[in-house]
Amino acid sequence: MRKVYVPGAGMTPFGVSGKTSMEMFAEASFAACEGSGIDPKEIQALFVGNVLGDFEEGQINMAAFLAAEMGLSPEVPAVRIENACASSTVAIRNAALLVASGVYDVVLVGGTERTTVMGTPLATRTFAMGSHCRYEEPSGITFPGIFGMAAHLYADRYSIPLETLKRQMALVAVKNHRNGARNPLAHFRKEITVETMLGSFMVSDPLQLYDCCPFSDGAAALILAAGARFRPRERKPVILSGVGQASAGSMCLQKDVTRSRAREASVRQAYRMAGIGPDDVDVCELHDCFTIAEILATEGLGFFEPGKGAVAVENGDTSLNGRIPVNPSGGLKAKGHPIGATGAAQAYEIVRQLRGECGDRQVEGATVGLVDTLGGEFGTVCNLVFSR
Amino acid sequence: MRKVYVPGAGMTPFGVSGKTSMEMFAEASFAACEGSGIDPKEIQALFVGNVLGDFEEGQINMAAFLAAEMGLSPEVPAVRIENACASSTVAIRNAALLVASGVYDVVLVGGTERTTVMGTPLATRTFAMGSHCRYEEPSGITFPGIFGMAAHLYADRYSIPLETLKRQMALVAVKNHRNGARNPLAHFRKEITVETMLGSFMVSDPLQLYDCCPFSDGAAALILAAGARFRPRERKPVILSGVGQASAGSMCLQKDVTRSRAREASVRQAYRMAGIGPDDVDVCELHDCFTIAEILATEGLGFFEPGKGAVAVENGDTSLNGRIPVNPSGGLKAKGHPIGATGAAQAYEIVRQLRGECGDRQVEGATVGLVDTLGGEFGTVCNLVFSR
Repeated sequence: MRKVYVPGAGMTPFGVSGKTSMEMFAEASFAACEGSGIDPKEIQALFVGNVLGDFEEGQINMAAFLAAEMGLSPEVPAVRIENACASSTVAIRNAALLVASGVYDVVLVGGTERTTVMGTPLATRTFAMGSHCRYEEPSGITFPGIFGMAAHLYADRYSIPLETLKRQMALVAVKNHRNGARNPLAHFRKEITVETMLGSFMVSDPLQLYDCCPFSDGAAALILAAGARFRPRERKPVILSGVGQASAGSMCLQKDVTRSRAREASVRQAYRMAGIGPDDVDVCELHDCFTIAEILATEGLGFFEPGKGAVAVENGDTSLNGRIPVNPSGGLKAKGHPIGATGAAQAYEIVRQLRGECGDRQVEGATVGLVDTLGGEFGTVCNLVFSR
Repeated sequence: MRKVYVPGAGMTPFGVSGKTSMEMFAEASFAACEGSGIDPKEIQALFVGNVLGDFEEGQINMAAFLAAEMGLSPEVPAVRIENACASSTVAIRNAALLVASGVYDVVLVGGTERTTVMGTPLATRTFAMGSHCRYEEPSGITFPGIFGMAAHLYADRYSIPLETLKRQMALVAVKNHRNGARNPLAHFRKEITVETMLGSFMVSDPLQLYDCCPFSDGAAALILAAGARFRPRERKPVILSGVGQASAGSMCLQKDVTRSRAREASVRQAYRMAGIGPDDVDVCELHDCFTIAEILATEGLGFFEPGKGAVAVENGDTSLNGRIPVNPSGGLKAKGHPIGATGAAQAYEIVRQLRGECGDRQVEGATVGLVDTLGGEFGTVCNLVFSR
């Protein structure tokens, strides 16, 4: 397998955009090409993660239109990948494997989504299609409900008083909003306090408004390159050194939703491929769709023992200057969550962090970064390790 | 690149099914495993083509649920691919490249779709999302309209009287229904005559009812395998020897819709990789969503000169015993068109043909077969060459 370089990464602002998914993807893609030393004409394949282009904009087969409108050669195969919120992470994993194995030398990969046209209530309902249509959806449950139950189970399993856990979850949101305020591309750029958080309305007990990430519009893209003809411009270029992906079924197949077996299997693959362990990770972007989800993910990725993720937040272990800084971009919580673009945006942040380009949210000296994206409740987990 | 073997292929009956997309895919997949020498536990990755699981059944992230419900290991990455009608062909191409390059040794790949729950008028409207949402859909055009215009343009460009072309198009349908009547898995198993055809109601001038393929339910799947541990059971096993995929944009970017530049680019890639030319193809399954589409495809694939495809049907060149038998399965026209499963079903037919298992629709002595699938009007074309 060849070394996969990441010479370029681009991202649109996240938030409410008047642009189409395709316009946003093109914007992120040209930003990724800029300064990468790669001419768009060199791109040999396009992969785009997108979840609900049909519901949102009446568009299927988006990849082929994108390739043509961005001026790529008709010879270029363009593929749309959908694995719920993990769509673009899965796209990056597949693109990386095809570059590593020598099928392509230069690939454009990313994700795009326009969710705000629907409004949050309709988007929440529509997005519940990421649950199983036979075994889960008939119950009427949506994602806030699922993660609310996970929070209760977590509190119960580890004998944490619910009020303590709620305060710890609030600290996740406070941290991510603090980081997001330093990210010029974030959807929400204002800090919040534990009091604001605990005073906000109840969404799905015990999750309150600020425990939940927003739906956003946005796109992000990477250039992946390898091979004899590609020469990295930097002395220490960023490489994509490990990938993992695993699949779990509906919730009724999970033994314990506080421990995602898909995540544990996926990150094991990624660590093995990169030849590292959780202690080697300097910075992590993970799937904080709800505050409890961040806590569960930090445990699943091996940063903390099961049951110790919540108190780690209180200890500041996941803050910018903590033991393992988590979601310096603001995460889904503050940076925003344009579902099909989320994984690519996580990758964008890690690439920028490893390059030391993140200004006052920079994790000093970061050389190894991890991406973690969840697709559906617990159906898909995909991980990427970047290093420099 | 390693040789990619196809030790197994499975397919459900096409037509109106009471089963879900996932149930049908599992059925096709287990059929593909049966007799292949591959145990489902050996499967290292799953790729599934599906177009409108969300609109049809309220299901996204289908691949992860499928992997779990089929009992695959959680370690197995499961990916959904969507490129309109070419979804599963694109899935096969990507899976094949990952097997050829040594990333995986055993992969399960296919497609599934449940279209009949909507009914034809709604499905036609919904499926028009394969056109460009900004430049085409606002005109109100649907696929029958697009191919109706292509037929008029073809008649005009090659100075064929419209009545002559209509009779030639009718002969495409008559041939494909004749073949479909011999396919136990086909949606329509009855022969039709030119008279029935020309007496049927007008859908989109000059296309009448029998010029149009139906929407169907169904699934099809293949096992792809390679590597030192895999030993083919047959003396002359079927291999996937060439793949191609190309991308065109919306119709306004096409110089001439009677000649798909995406098809010409895609099939050139596939022929080059397989080391063959059009004259080496013994049997072809191609994208006859409308009768005119079959005529255009036979030209784009290089079987006939531009403008000569219609008269070739009249000459019997594309019949079972003709120079280049086209759509022995009955094609989309008679076998049916469960959009996300269509490409995998074309591949299924070619694999069975090369194995000599097609009974009274068998193309005698076929050793090289071609698959051609169109995604959207002309947006994606994907080709596969199988040989034995």
